[in-house]
Amino acid sequence: MSIADVSSEDRPPLALASVTELPRVHTDLDTEDLHPSIEDPALNSMNFLNEVANHYPDAVSLAAGRPFEEFWETDELSRYLARFSQHLREDRGYSEERVRRTLFQYGRTKGIVHELVAANLELDEGIVADPESIVVTVGCQEAMVLVLRALRAGPRDVLLAVSPTYVGLTGAARLVDMPVLPVASGEAGIDLDDLLSRIQGARAAGLRPRACYVMPDFANPSGVSMSEQTRRALLSLAREEDFLLLEDNPYGLFHGDASRVPTLKALDECRRVVYLGSFAKTVLPGARVGYVVADQTVRGGDGTVRLLADELSKIKSMLTVNTPALAQAVVGGKLLEHGCSLVRATAREREVYAANRTRVVEGLAARFGDDSLVGWNVPMGGFFVVVTVPFTVDDALLTRSARDYGVLWTPMHHFYDTGTSNADGIRSLRLSCSVVNAEQIDAGLDRLALLINDELARTRR
Amino acid sequence: MSIADVSSEDRPPLALASVTELPRVHTDLDTEDLHPSIEDPALNSMNFLNEVANHYPDAVSLAAGRPFEEFWETDELSRYLARFSQHLREDRGYSEERVRRTLFQYGRTKGIVHELVAANLELDEGIVADPESIVVTVGCQEAMVLVLRALRAGPRDVLLAVSPTYVGLTGAARLVDMPVLPVASGEAGIDLDDLLSRIQGARAAGLRPRACYVMPDFANPSGVSMSEQTRRALLSLAREEDFLLLEDNPYGLFHGDASRVPTLKALDECRRVVYLGSFAKTVLPGARVGYVVADQTVRGGDGTVRLLADELSKIKSMLTVNTPALAQAVVGGKLLEHGCSLVRATAREREVYAANRTRVVEGLAARFGDDSLVGWNVPMGGFFVVVTVPFTVDDALLTRSARDYGVLWTPMHHFYDTGTSNADGIRSLRLSCSVVNAEQIDAGLDRLALLINDELARTRR
Repeated sequence: MSIADVSSEDRPPLALASVTELPRVHTDLDTEDLHPSIEDPALNSMNFLNEVANHYPDAVSLAAGRPFEEFWETDELSRYLARFSQHLREDRGYSEERVRRTLFQYGRTKGIVHELVAANLELDEGIVADPESIVVTVGCQEAMVLVLRALRAGPRDVLLAVSPTYVGLTGAARLVDMPVLPVASGEAGIDLDDLLSRIQGARAAGLRPRACYVMPDFANPSGVSMSEQTRRALLSLAREEDFLLLEDNPYGLFHGDASRVPTLKALDECRRVVYLGSFAKTVLPGARVGYVVADQTVRGGDGTVRLLADELSKIKSMLTVNTPALAQAVVGGKLLEHGCSLVRATAREREVYAANRTRVVEGLAARFGDDSLVGWNVPMGGFFVVVTVPFTVDDALLTRSARDYGVLWTPMHHFYDTGTSNADGIRSLRLSCSVVNAEQIDAGLDRLALLINDELARTRR
Repeated sequence: MSIADVSSEDRPPLALASVTELPRVHTDLDTEDLHPSIEDPALNSMNFLNEVANHYPDAVSLAAGRPFEEFWETDELSRYLARFSQHLREDRGYSEERVRRTLFQYGRTKGIVHELVAANLELDEGIVADPESIVVTVGCQEAMVLVLRALRAGPRDVLLAVSPTYVGLTGAARLVDMPVLPVASGEAGIDLDDLLSRIQGARAAGLRPRACYVMPDFANPSGVSMSEQTRRALLSLAREEDFLLLEDNPYGLFHGDASRVPTLKALDECRRVVYLGSFAKTVLPGARVGYVVADQTVRGGDGTVRLLADELSKIKSMLTVNTPALAQAVVGGKLLEHGCSLVRATAREREVYAANRTRVVEGLAARFGDDSLVGWNVPMGGFFVVVTVPFTVDDALLTRSARDYGVLWTPMHHFYDTGTSNADGIRSLRLSCSVVNAEQIDAGLDRLALLINDELARTRR
C-alpha cells in the first residue's frame, strides 16, 4: 500500500486533540520508554497524512494510493470462497471434512494457495518458482518484515534502498532496528555507480550490506521503471558484490501499451532475488494477501540445507502463525476463476489507470506547459506521477492546500528517509490517480494549479 | 494456538531430509548470518513436533491443541459475511458502496469490529473497554508481537513470564530480542514471592522488567488457574513495583461447572493490565482474529497524551497494515448472530471439552491410580492435562511413543525456556483433549499407559 491508503475511519488525531486539552496528569507510560520506531517519522507520516485527509473530507484526493473500487461486487467474496472449496474437492480430492478443516482450522504456515501463486507467477511474469519456496503472507508488508527480520542478524547488518523509497519498507526496517542506506535513483530507476559506492562505503565502515530493496516497475512514489539493461546490470552487481535484491512488484500489471520488461526475478539465474508479491492491487486490499518467493538455499549450523522460505516460515509462525485461510481462499478463488492469470482479470482496471495517468499528464501539460519552473514525469504505468516545483514542499503547504484550495496530494519528503519529519528542501509532490474519476482529476489539477501559481507568485515577490 | 496445532500439511522436514542427502554444495546463505531466532529452540519446537506428527500419521494425537471441529459448517462463512454486511447497512447506516469499501478496501488500522469486541468483553468478561483502546490483530500472536515490540525499547528491557510458558510468547519475544525471565508457577499459578525476587534481581542487574506475561485461566500448558485472591495480590504487586501484566485468555470460556473467577482485566482499576484476546478457540482459528486491549495512557515527547492502543496501531501499520477485513467480518458476523455473547455461542464446545477432560482424568486414574510414581493435575477448564512421571521426558521418548506405541503428546520441556532443545531433566508431558473423541482418548491413554509402564520397568531395572 502507499501512504494515505488508509480509510478515513482512522481517526487517532481527533481523539488526540481532545486529550491534549487536559491538564498535565499522571500517565502510565512515556514514549521514550517505548521502542523508538513509535516516534519515528516513517511510522508517523501515515498518521499525519490521514489526519489532514480527515480534517478536510471535501478536498479532492490525489493522495490516496488505494486501488480502483468501482468494479467490486460484494457477491464476489462468497463466489470465490465457493470456487476455492470446489478446487479443493475436485482438483485435489479433499473430503468435505478436509475442505472444512482447510478453511476453518489452523493450517500450513507457508500458506494454502502457494501452488496457485506459482501458476500465476509463471503465466503472468514468466517466473518459475517451486511452490515450496513461496510463503503466503498477511499482505506484502508482512513479507518485508519476515525478510528484514531474517537478514538483520546483528548490529552490522544494513539494508540499501533506492531513494525515494516506499515508506512501508522504511517502517518495516525500523521494527527490526535495521538501518536503511539510501541509493540514488537517477533516471534509470537506480544509479548503479552510487549503489556500488554505498556498498563499498558501508563495508569500509564495518557494516554488512545484506540486500538492496527496489521496485523496478512503476515505483511508488517515483513512477520510474528500470530498463532491461539496468536490471541485468543490477543482477550482475548483486552477484559480484554478494548481496540480495528485494524486488517489490505491486504495480507490474498496470502498464500502458508498451511491452513489459521482465521482472528481476524472471531474469535471476543465481537466486539473487527475493521476490515480494501483493494481491492488494490485483485482487483486493481487504484480503491482505501477499507472498514472498525465497528460493535461496541456507546451510544450518548442523550442515542441513533448507530453503530461505522455510526459515522465513519459522519467523512467520511467531508473527502471525498463518495467513487467514479465508482470505487466501478468496484470492485463490479469483485466481481459479481466471485460469490463474491476473493479466486477464485486471484488464478493466489497467484501462482505468492508463486513462487516468494520461489525463493527469495531459492535464499538467495544459496547465503548466508554458511554465518552465514546473515539471513532471510521464510514467509508463502504475498509480503515480511526480510534480517538481521551484519551492520546498512541506507539510504546512499540504495543510494549506487542503484547507484553502481543496486538494490533497503527498509531499515527496515523506519518502526520503532523512530521519526528520521536515521537508529537508525536497521540492516535489506525488499525485496518485488510482481511485479518482475524470472529473475529480480535472478539479484536483485546477486546484493544484491555483496553489502552485500562488506559491510561484509568492516566491517571485 | 498451542504447540502442534499446525495441520499435517506443514512438511518442511520431508523436503529437508531429501536435501541433506546431497553432497556439500555452495549455498546462498548460512543460518549464522540470519537472525538468531531462526535457530532458537522456541521457534524450532513446533517444527520438531509437526515432523513427528507427520511421520506417524496413524498415531492417536493427544498433542494437538486445535479446537473441536465437528460443529463447523462451511455455510457459516457466507452467512457471517452477510450478517456483518447487514449490520453495517442497518445498524450503522452505511451505503452499499461504503459496505463494499469496508470489506474490500484498506481500512482502519485498529480494526472494524472493535465495538463488537468491546460489547463481547462487557457481556462475557465484565470488562468495560473503550473501543478506541482495542487493536484488532492477526490472531493473538500479532497482539503479543505488537506489545513486546513496543515495550522492548532498548537492551535493558526484559519480560517476565510464568514458567512453563506458552511457546508463542517466547517466540514473539525472540523476534524482538527481548529476554524472558522465568517466574515459578507453584500451585497458585504464579509464585508471587518468586516474582518479586525476580524483579528485584533484574533491577539489581541493571535490567528493566517491563511486564509479566500470565494466562490466569486454564493455562497452556499447565492447565492451572489463579484464584481471585492471587489475582488481586498480583495486581497490587504490579502497581507497587510498576510493571504491566500481559493477560492472555484463550481458554476462559471453557471452564467446567464451577463459577468463573474474574479476569485480571475485570479487576484492574489502575490500567496495569494489557489484555490479549483470541477468537481462535471461540469462533475459528482460520480467521486469525485476535485483539489487544491497551487502555494505558502514553505521554509523547511533545507532551501529547495518547492511548497505548494508538502506539501499537503505528507498529501494526508497518507489520500487517490491517487485519483482513474479510476475517474480521466473519468473526463480527458470529458475534452479531449471538448477541455478542460467545458464552452462549460456545455452549456445545464447552460441554465437549468438559467431557473430554473428565474422560482423560478418569482414564488416568483408572490406569495409574495404584501407581504413586505417576501423577497428573485436574484442571477446572481448558484443553490440557499435565502428567508427571519419574523419568525425563525428552524428544527421543516422544519419537519412540509415536513409532512403537502409536500415541502423540507434548514433552513439557518445550515450554521451559532453557535456551536448549534438550529435556533438561523435565519429567512431565502435556495431554490435549480438545480435538479428539472418546474412543481416541481411550486408545491414546491405553497406548500411553503401555509406554509409561515400559519406561517405569526400564527405570527400575
